[in-house]
Amino acid sequence: MSTRPRILVHGASGRMGQALLRLAAGREDLDIVAAVSGRPPKQRVIDGVPYFGASELGGAPTFDVAIDFSLPGGFDPLLALCIKRGAALVSGTTGLDDAQRAALDAAAATIPVLWASNFSLGVAVLEDLVARAAAVLPGWDCDIVESHHTRKLDAPSGTALTLGEAAAGQGATPHYASIRAGDIVGEHLVQFTSVGERIELVHRATNRDIFASGALHVAARLAGRAPRRYAIADLLGDAAA
Amino acid sequence: MSTRPRILVHGASGRMGQALLRLAAGREDLDIVAAVSGRPPKQRVIDGVPYFGASELGGAPTFDVAIDFSLPGGFDPLLALCIKRGAALVSGTTGLDDAQRAALDAAAATIPVLWASNFSLGVAVLEDLVARAAAVLPGWDCDIVESHHTRKLDAPSGTALTLGEAAAGQGATPHYASIRAGDIVGEHLVQFTSVGERIELVHRATNRDIFASGALHVAARLAGRAPRRYAIADLLGDAAA
Amino acid sequence: MSTRPRILVHGASGRMGQALLRLAAGREDLDIVAAVSGRPPKQRVIDGVPYFGASELGGAPTFDVAIDFSLPGGFDPLLALCIKRGAALVSGTTGLDDAQRAALDAAAATIPVLWASNFSLGVAVLEDLVARAAAVLPGWDCDIVESHHTRKLDAPSGTALTLGEAAAGQGATPHYASIRAGDIVGEHLVQFTSVGERIELVHRATNRDIFASGALHVAARLAGRAPRRYAIADLLGDAAA
Amino acid sequence: MSTRPRILVHGASGRMGQALLRLAAGREDLDIVAAVSGRPPKQRVIDGVPYFGASELGGAPTFDVAIDFSLPGGFDPLLALCIKRGAALVSGTTGLDDAQRAALDAAAATIPVLWASNFSLGVAVLEDLVARAAAVLPGWDCDIVESHHTRKLDAPSGTALTLGEAAAGQGATPHYASIRAGDIVGEHLVQFTSVGERIELVHRATNRDIFASGALHVAARLAGRAPRRYAIADLLGDAAA
Repeated sequence: MSTRPRILVHGASGRMGQALLRLAAGREDLDIVAAVSGRPPKQRVIDGVPYFGASELGGAPTFDVAIDFSLPGGFDPLLALCIKRGAALVSGTTGLDDAQRAALDAAAATIPVLWASNFSLGVAVLEDLVARAAAVLPGWDCDIVESHHTRKLDAPSGTALTLGEAAAGQGATPHYASIRAGDIVGEHLVQFTSVGERIELVHRATNRDIFASGALHVAARLAGRAPRRYAIADLLGDAAA
Repeated sequence: MSTRPRILVHGASGRMGQALLRLAAGREDLDIVAAVSGRPPKQRVIDGVPYFGASELGGAPTFDVAIDFSLPGGFDPLLALCIKRGAALVSGTTGLDDAQRAALDAAAATIPVLWASNFSLGVAVLEDLVARAAAVLPGWDCDIVESHHTRKLDAPSGTALTLGEAAAGQGATPHYASIRAGDIVGEHLVQFTSVGERIELVHRATNRDIFASGALHVAARLAGRAPRRYAIADLLGDAAA
Repeated sequence: MSTRPRILVHGASGRMGQALLRLAAGREDLDIVAAVSGRPPKQRVIDGVPYFGASELGGAPTFDVAIDFSLPGGFDPLLALCIKRGAALVSGTTGLDDAQRAALDAAAATIPVLWASNFSLGVAVLEDLVARAAAVLPGWDCDIVESHHTRKLDAPSGTALTLGEAAAGQGATPHYASIRAGDIVGEHLVQFTSVGERIELVHRATNRDIFASGALHVAARLAGRAPRRYAIADLLGDAAA
Repeated sequence: MSTRPRILVHGASGRMGQALLRLAAGREDLDIVAAVSGRPPKQRVIDGVPYFGASELGGAPTFDVAIDFSLPGGFDPLLALCIKRGAALVSGTTGLDDAQRAALDAAAATIPVLWASNFSLGVAVLEDLVARAAAVLPGWDCDIVESHHTRKLDAPSGTALTLGEAAAGQGATPHYASIRAGDIVGEHLVQFTSVGERIELVHRATNRDIFASGALHVAARLAGRAPRRYAIADLLGDAAA
């Protein structure tokens, strides 16, 4: 591994891919060495970053970590390349099938692997805090309220369900409520209530960039780690790779 | 009317009646002159207040306002007495039938009348603010979240529905969510959300006494008013009778 | 006045000016007919809008409303032009001196004039709600907490002071607290507390665009109005010009 | 130790002492076997609990834990008695001098000892969550806002300072704000803010009884433990003595 982890961005033409490339330009803890989009790009180099089509994936230069926000169809060749190159994989691609999830598990024997549905560092911290609170507050009522923009169709949000599982894993019985209003990026409240007192744990996202910057944060810290599956919570704080 | 309005408490043995009598003792803007409970009481005078059974209602001394938190069965004789005596009526009794509600309307031609489901002054203010906000924020999303103790069975709360009607009356389309947790006395959030900004209007009740003190507040201000139906919002502020 | 109010943007090269031009392109209730920046621009027409330097102001085409987010130095010629043309003026320029403020007052005899420090529609609504709440809640404690990004130097914020004046005008005695953290666009909480209950009135801004879109909103509604000074609260809701 | 820990309440005539005795009557995880107040009481037994004056302390029956909410003047004999009897000590007495605090430390070699300024279980949990959040969120801004009733003179509250120390111990730099309003029992917000996201950790106390019930909770769990100093956080959850 080089001093600064070398990152390949897979899904470079999507909204997350574009945000990853834009935000990486301002960071000093990593270098983008390749951007891969579905079709071979017209411009081969943009802002100093070489671009590749999916069919040209094998020609990508040496990299330490691949960050993948694309579609299930492109997942298998990327995973194969990471294993072949001994590179880590950070993926937020949704809709993977059972075989793909099993392949991801198997790959963790060989390379560092991290898959998450929400790359906000704050949400990862909240999930940890919720589990701890639930563990020491048996018998307290647990309620989760999530708010998102009106274009979000599913409810409760995947993040709310993840938080609820963290509480339920410690014996709590979460109840959910959902609000769909305006252009709210994402807010989650997990509340523990007893007689005469209450704890409220809240995360508010006000800018979608936090998801891309969270993915860059964990990618920079995943490079050079021992092979296994990682969670975002494993890579918080200052701890460098 | 005497300098200090003379109050008759109807439903004196109930939880609200007991709170009314306890809190009235510390107020200088009214005097309790009679307490009426269902059955004739064993003690005829408690803390200086004469007690009457429902069957002895006609023997109550002169009063300016009756405060009624009892049952529908005792409502008709009390309303008749208020009309006969020319006294105002403040009622929070629930479950009145159509005939009783019509009688209340008719009585408003003769005496000041106020019926409400929630006597918190803050909730009355919130209702007014919600209507105003809805009127000037067309197109903003409107959400109402109410939280109450786990023994409350109905949802949304009656107060949430009243707040929602205040918003709907100005063209908003409220959505409701309910939380039942711990011993929460009552919290209501009405939220108006647009693109890039949001207004949150919240009322938190932390002590049930506010309902009794709100009823005393409006009773003191209703004495000597012109006959008509009043709302709590008409009697807020310093304005004395 | 034409069917769609014709708008001149003064201060077109500033952050607010750029936002005004960008957001106006998506609105159907107004047309931008001129953009004025300090120095004569190299490009005379951008996205169909003719640009002028400050020295060329007199050559601007007919307009119904000028929106001014510039510097005090350019204010006097713009005000003179609005009076000469019989056009309305919406200004958010800060740092005007006493003479300029007096000239603005005098101009209100001839043209519609609106000056504000915060063009969020939600904040204008909040100010109105705060005044109403304070008026009917005498004796309740009043606290104002404002949160902004860490680059904001003044505290309390001008908006917090405006909200406090709205409460103080009704007899409340506001106390202030300020939080400077992260990149918070702007949040204001005005809280009224009594014994056993509390009202919280909150505005959260999550996107700076609301200030430009608020200015466009009031400009569209100010065109063709009678001459006088206006406040944003006068121009809320659906009421068209 | 008996099946149900036997508790001696020291400071039985104070507000906390009275709350301890009232709330203990409804619990099945402990028995009150003695109540000690400053002066010898007129009634020797109240609701089945034998009362003692401070001068009669030595005559108290066998107990497993003493709960002390009294004054520094009575502290030394109580501590001596606990050591002599091999009983645990739970104390919330404020104003202890250096010698007394040193004696408490020394006693921890012999008996289980717990001293705290706030016996709310929720606050103890919040303190733990704050430390964890601060540890994994380096560089996030940390703000603490506490709200209490208007009779509270000190600011920030002792609890706010304790929470701030928990954050500062992990490298955060907390800023404080205080609100004094109405009859708020006690609310604490610890907020961590970054660019584009924010975590808010809140505790709300709505009933003073939580302090007494928290003290009973830890007393029941302290009986029979190994000698050392304990914190409330050590005794949360279901773990019985």
